[in-house]
Amino acid sequence: MATVTLREIVARFGGELLGNGETTVDRIASIENAAPGSITFLSNPKYKRALAQTAASAVILHPNSAADALIPAIVTAQPYLYFAHVAQWLHPAPSPAPGIHLSATVESSLHQSVSVGPGTRIGLNAKIGDSVVIGAGCSIDSDVEIGAGSILHSGVMIYANTRIGSKAIIHSGAVIGADGFGFARESDGGWIKIPQRGRVLIGDDVEIGANTCIDRGAIEDTVICNGVKLDNLIQIAHNVHIGEHTAIAACVGIAGSTTIGKRCTVAGASSIIGHLQIADDVNILVASLISRSIPKAGTYSGSVPFLEHEEWLRNFSHLRHLDRMADKIRDLEKRLAELESAK
Amino acid sequence: MATVTLREIVARFGGELLGNGETTVDRIASIENAAPGSITFLSNPKYKRALAQTAASAVILHPNSAADALIPAIVTAQPYLYFAHVAQWLHPAPSPAPGIHLSATVESSLHQSVSVGPGTRIGLNAKIGDSVVIGAGCSIDSDVEIGAGSILHSGVMIYANTRIGSKAIIHSGAVIGADGFGFARESDGGWIKIPQRGRVLIGDDVEIGANTCIDRGAIEDTVICNGVKLDNLIQIAHNVHIGEHTAIAACVGIAGSTTIGKRCTVAGASSIIGHLQIADDVNILVASLISRSIPKAGTYSGSVPFLEHEEWLRNFSHLRHLDRMADKIRDLEKRLAELESAK
Amino acid sequence: MATVTLREIVARFGGELLGNGETTVDRIASIENAAPGSITFLSNPKYKRALAQTAASAVILHPNSAADALIPAIVTAQPYLYFAHVAQWLHPAPSPAPGIHLSATVESSLHQSVSVGPGTRIGLNAKIGDSVVIGAGCSIDSDVEIGAGSILHSGVMIYANTRIGSKAIIHSGAVIGADGFGFARESDGGWIKIPQRGRVLIGDDVEIGANTCIDRGAIEDTVICNGVKLDNLIQIAHNVHIGEHTAIAACVGIAGSTTIGKRCTVAGASSIIGHLQIADDVNILVASLISRSIPKAGTYSGSVPFLEHEEWLRNFSHLRHLDRMADKIRDLEKRLAELESAK
Repeated sequence: MATVTLREIVARFGGELLGNGETTVDRIASIENAAPGSITFLSNPKYKRALAQTAASAVILHPNSAADALIPAIVTAQPYLYFAHVAQWLHPAPSPAPGIHLSATVESSLHQSVSVGPGTRIGLNAKIGDSVVIGAGCSIDSDVEIGAGSILHSGVMIYANTRIGSKAIIHSGAVIGADGFGFARESDGGWIKIPQRGRVLIGDDVEIGANTCIDRGAIEDTVICNGVKLDNLIQIAHNVHIGEHTAIAACVGIAGSTTIGKRCTVAGASSIIGHLQIADDVNILVASLISRSIPKAGTYSGSVPFLEHEEWLRNFSHLRHLDRMADKIRDLEKRLAELESAK
Repeated sequence: MATVTLREIVARFGGELLGNGETTVDRIASIENAAPGSITFLSNPKYKRALAQTAASAVILHPNSAADALIPAIVTAQPYLYFAHVAQWLHPAPSPAPGIHLSATVESSLHQSVSVGPGTRIGLNAKIGDSVVIGAGCSIDSDVEIGAGSILHSGVMIYANTRIGSKAIIHSGAVIGADGFGFARESDGGWIKIPQRGRVLIGDDVEIGANTCIDRGAIEDTVICNGVKLDNLIQIAHNVHIGEHTAIAACVGIAGSTTIGKRCTVAGASSIIGHLQIADDVNILVASLISRSIPKAGTYSGSVPFLEHEEWLRNFSHLRHLDRMADKIRDLEKRLAELESAK
Repeated sequence: MATVTLREIVARFGGELLGNGETTVDRIASIENAAPGSITFLSNPKYKRALAQTAASAVILHPNSAADALIPAIVTAQPYLYFAHVAQWLHPAPSPAPGIHLSATVESSLHQSVSVGPGTRIGLNAKIGDSVVIGAGCSIDSDVEIGAGSILHSGVMIYANTRIGSKAIIHSGAVIGADGFGFARESDGGWIKIPQRGRVLIGDDVEIGANTCIDRGAIEDTVICNGVKLDNLIQIAHNVHIGEHTAIAACVGIAGSTTIGKRCTVAGASSIIGHLQIADDVNILVASLISRSIPKAGTYSGSVPFLEHEEWLRNFSHLRHLDRMADKIRDLEKRLAELESAK
């Protein structure tokens, strides 16, 4: 852990210093549970009260809250973003010693700055960039490229011909490049597999969560652009294209050949069917099913409220009969109009 | 497999013996497919007919059904619970021989009762309790604690600083302690990672299903209390807190910083959004989206019925127009009231 | 890659040849992005325009489109199915050299045609068929059977006593045979584990996607019949039975003891609750919750439309009050009938 002064932080990241610039901090903390030596942030004014009581040594906050700071502070228009930068500086990702563990099986030549953990297998013709870290028990099939500075945690599985950019972070259990789900149907109902010949191409600065799956393309490639962030247990089917800086929360599934624009957000447990076009800057809220293309930016929802079970029984049963309800309303309108005209 | 008499079972677990106490059994069976030598149970009276025909050597049943037993029986108020105890006795989990497989990479010192499978890696400063079993191809990062008697099946991935209690069972592919999904957004839409510095703390007697993910906390810890049971393919986000004896079925996602009480049940395919408080003894039914805190015990639902596709087309299209439907009803009410008063 | 003439293709798979039968092709391509030397297909007439411009050397198409072919063509009633066969011929799955990698731990005797990758563990009493390929970092517990020609990609976890047929393909991270989620509840809310003693039985020609889980049965077995295709991140609970040639897309969960018929399709993100019977030839559309048995073939839906968030707020709030809406309609009908009869 680094120990830095507020003055050093401001020199590096900007912002306005309030109070003693020689104050030192060596770790981040939440505002409620901070201990001396830590730096925290206030981005939501509802925590202002906590600010008065925090034991943190310093706080990052918005100009609107600056007057409430009783401790040394850094004032910035975007406290949470600023906090992220400080946090990365104070808590750099641990970097294991370079070198290939004796128990690894590596069939390609690697730069001496690369770290390969126990039991990991790297196949033929791998192109692994400088300072890449590959944990224990990973499998990298042949002809895979991984850009400089990327980190693969333990137990990541990469199929042949996958290309991953630089500074990617891939968490345990992620499977990149497995076959897409493509079959042609025979007349007896059986299925003939379509060989999946495309690749997975992943840009720079992409993070991929634990047990997330990204399938290789059927003929052309599946593409994940720079800066995309994927949470855990996500399914990305063959030939999906995800634009730059789009972030997708856990338990989302995206079916084949769908294109998602740049800077989109998809909240958890949503599903997007195949062959759609989603525009840039679209926000999809939690547990929504996206069943048609979305040609313009905006926020979209499709989730269903929950109720106490008794209430749910009473209300949701009508979902099976909405059409009858609409018919009745139409009938009432007609009969009422007749009465009105007869008056 | 043990062979025991009914008398021995009753001596150990209580209950009332009906018939020959020297009857021996050596395995459990379902009431329909039992063979001689097996013990079965009857907890649902609708299987009474099967009882008359079962080939089991003995049955565990409720006092209300005792009169129907044509074979030796144990009578107890909770037949299924009793059956669980008997089943555990007859079918103890197999315990592989202690010792570290030659192909494992272990950087900590382990008690001689610990079993470590082929290809498993255990990092520095691990504290592994007596008789822990760790399967093949697991990865345990540094500074991990695992309590006595816990079982990790093959291919479990544990990140650094995780703490697991005693007698836990963790199934293959589970990933414990991967980074939470935390980013601050830059003005151009890009994302800056918030280092995830918290841990995962898991209590005693917890079971975690295959390919389930539990993320480490952002600053504070993610906490899974004693006796929690998690099925497969579950996502537990950073800083979630799950109370004692809560059971969660497969394909559930729980978003960040949500607290779930004790003795809750969450049925499969449900989602719970972040920063909620769920009370003790809450039951959430299948495929529900929990979008608000639940302050009191009870049963809650939010799932949608299915229909034949033609019917679905007719009915569900109205979901897009419920507001117009409500407007029409309001308009009808007003016009009807006018007619009534004009009468 | 093979290079073949159209004449050879037609000799093998039938169909009618249009144009130069000596045309050679060595790979498949999409109609838009084909290069010379490739063979493509036209199954959807909306791509007819692309056919006029394709650079492919040959195309597979339906008699109805034959007149539009400006390049050598094979005419067949089912172009996509035909394409699948040709694709498999041109792109056979790569077969790694037979033999057991030095770093593997194999406790059973294997036929010399079997290939076992680095770091893989195979336990006692395995029966592995000829030409089976097992990738890196797999774990096969004791008493497992795998039929001839099956392929396990890296990182597949198979629990004890599992039986897998011939020509299966299992993708990375799949977990077969983990314990089903079975517990009896104690009066204090705690859970007693029911030992899961059943097996998983998987037929021939089954494909199982990445990170998919199939749990072992509680007492009897979980059964996946011949020709079943499972996509990624699917949960199959204990004692589920899936009939021949049924195909299930990603992110589906099927709860315990449900039986699904033959030739069914289940679209992505759907859930099926436990103890149901689903008939043969049932198609379940995307993101549906199947909460009752389906006794007859047909197409079923239960998914909810999405809306712009503002519209969603206006419309979906009524879901909580559908019963009141129905009451109001009933009241209106009654009052209107009174007015009508008083006229």
